[in-house]
Amino acid sequence: MNNFVFHNPTKIIFGVDTTNEVGKEAKNYGKKVLLVSGQGSIKRIGLYDRVVKLLKDSGLEVYELEGAKPNPRVDLVRKGIQMVRENKIELILALGSGSVIDTGKAIAAGLTYEGDVWDLFRYRKPIKPTIPIGVVLTLAATGSEMNGNAVISNMETEEKLSISSPYIYPKFSILDPKNTTTVPMNHTLYGIVDILSHVFEQYFDRTEGAVLQDRFAESIMKTVIETTPKLLKNPEDVEARGIILWCGTNALNGIIGVGKEQEWASHDIEHAISAVYDVPHGLGLAIVFPQWMKYVIDTIPHKFAQFARNIWGIQGDDDFEVGLEGIDRLIDFYESIGVPTKLSKIGINDERLEEMAEKATLFGPLGNTKKLTKEDVLNILKMCL
Amino acid sequence: MNNFVFHNPTKIIFGVDTTNEVGKEAKNYGKKVLLVSGQGSIKRIGLYDRVVKLLKDSGLEVYELEGAKPNPRVDLVRKGIQMVRENKIELILALGSGSVIDTGKAIAAGLTYEGDVWDLFRYRKPIKPTIPIGVVLTLAATGSEMNGNAVISNMETEEKLSISSPYIYPKFSILDPKNTTTVPMNHTLYGIVDILSHVFEQYFDRTEGAVLQDRFAESIMKTVIETTPKLLKNPEDVEARGIILWCGTNALNGIIGVGKEQEWASHDIEHAISAVYDVPHGLGLAIVFPQWMKYVIDTIPHKFAQFARNIWGIQGDDDFEVGLEGIDRLIDFYESIGVPTKLSKIGINDERLEEMAEKATLFGPLGNTKKLTKEDVLNILKMCL
Repeated sequence: MNNFVFHNPTKIIFGVDTTNEVGKEAKNYGKKVLLVSGQGSIKRIGLYDRVVKLLKDSGLEVYELEGAKPNPRVDLVRKGIQMVRENKIELILALGSGSVIDTGKAIAAGLTYEGDVWDLFRYRKPIKPTIPIGVVLTLAATGSEMNGNAVISNMETEEKLSISSPYIYPKFSILDPKNTTTVPMNHTLYGIVDILSHVFEQYFDRTEGAVLQDRFAESIMKTVIETTPKLLKNPEDVEARGIILWCGTNALNGIIGVGKEQEWASHDIEHAISAVYDVPHGLGLAIVFPQWMKYVIDTIPHKFAQFARNIWGIQGDDDFEVGLEGIDRLIDFYESIGVPTKLSKIGINDERLEEMAEKATLFGPLGNTKKLTKEDVLNILKMCL
Repeated sequence: MNNFVFHNPTKIIFGVDTTNEVGKEAKNYGKKVLLVSGQGSIKRIGLYDRVVKLLKDSGLEVYELEGAKPNPRVDLVRKGIQMVRENKIELILALGSGSVIDTGKAIAAGLTYEGDVWDLFRYRKPIKPTIPIGVVLTLAATGSEMNGNAVISNMETEEKLSISSPYIYPKFSILDPKNTTTVPMNHTLYGIVDILSHVFEQYFDRTEGAVLQDRFAESIMKTVIETTPKLLKNPEDVEARGIILWCGTNALNGIIGVGKEQEWASHDIEHAISAVYDVPHGLGLAIVFPQWMKYVIDTIPHKFAQFARNIWGIQGDDDFEVGLEGIDRLIDFYESIGVPTKLSKIGINDERLEEMAEKATLFGPLGNTKKLTKEDVLNILKMCL
């Protein structure tokens, strides 16, 4: 395995009804809080009002920024930065899923940059120390609740780009499984695909000797795959929701990826798809990842065979054949839980493939396992049709 | 699984030659450093002088405290506290294994307590914020490099007791596998038993639904068990040393124990043994743990069967029988790597068992899976003979 630095200072507060801790935690960071949220579903279930009340009961002054969408937009980030500056806000509290958290992180990052926040994404300008971020998570998927990454879309330029910085790790994240029980099943499932995809990006690489990390990765895969049918059967199964929630956090908090080269080409390809078509991130990943796997399997057939054997119990001596069967089993799994695995099934045809391949390779060839040029990405996108 | 808080802010710097980072890291915390170390083996290999030079080259003023022993003593802790107070030292740097780190942590904890430091252990007085601790680790075993625990012995009172506080997590820990290659094989093996025992303490409990945590625990067990023979064959295998090192840290940094009731009776029993006979901690655990397992298996036979099936591949329908076979396989494993599993094999007879049982239950009955009275502990110690 490679040398690494692991430093994840986020405080996780996990469990049923831990939402009640939000005021107590938030007030450690000041009096004025920007409450960032999404599109209204948390209002319908009463969670929004409950959190506002908890904050106010703890003596906090609440400024509200609503409207963060899946594939969150830079426009809202700009608005947030302005609100924080004008009101001298001390803490950003993200109440929602990955899009809300990433909006909050981008606001924090943009706050201490003198130019336009999009420069941090587009021109990779350095990110400086900034105000703290807290999280109340409502969807198992992103991992953003316990890392320093954020992904934001710019609809004008049709770009979806990411930043990463030690300064935007949440100070605390409240993971209350109850808050995830009302998520509609399709979004629950896209979240599950997202979790598995995060694991894949770190698992399928060329690094040898990261034995523990890979076993941790397989632990998450097995746990997610065995727990998903329970959720389909009973979406309000709080224990199953909690297990998936904790899998989501561990899939992207660093512990399965340390000391590894890692991949991330599929994420870049998916970001290009959702920049152009605004499809849910997890759905895009369910389509792209299996085809990426088929495209690169010849580079690391032993790793795909390990996946096939340890996750799906497939037997056989030929790594390539066994590995291919493992990929097919993954596709079967996605289809069995009702997640489409082809672009044609979600109404996307070959019209803008070239443009997506162009966007995906904006910063040069993608990934590590096999360096993917624009041509390669186009080939994979064609396989996705 | 139970609700939990997970907050582990230690920065891990892992990999071959990362020792070279020590000056750069340490100087973030001040100019005056107390270098705590052990009994000379790190001097023989030149590591001590190298670290001193690295610190001085970074402009640090180095105060030296040598002599921390396995089962580290409170006397040295008192001496360290005095040195820190007299010289206005700003950082404690522990260069060594668990005993050295725990000495450093106890110095830090005692520094901001007005009375005698032993009160923190014996009377569980509250621990206050204190100066930072850094670590350069030389043995895979303790986990102390990434948690807030410390265990110290008082030879006058023949007690070995622990403290735990968020204020004594190391700020940084340097894990350089090269520093562990010269550890003698017997101590390497005791370290390995220590790692497995930390996993067992968190794995064998009554909590249901901590599925991911238990798979992570099994990942560590499997990785340690498959890697140990490689080390026996070639003690200088840096890759294998690195894998074991990372297993040791993950065994006690919280991730496998969160949301679980946990056990820890065997550790309390072992602490009583080494308080009286000063045996290496890992060796004591190799003797106590299998007998504790046999004594409590009827409480959670399904969990012992899970261990037997997932770690040793044992088949069968009767959880109790399968579980017992798993325990025997563990004993076989310890014996196969040359670690004794009976008190009689290390020259301890039944003379002071009563006294050890008394010491072990100083604060009341032990553990959770089965609450162990002094009588129970005595029974287990007799089984250890």
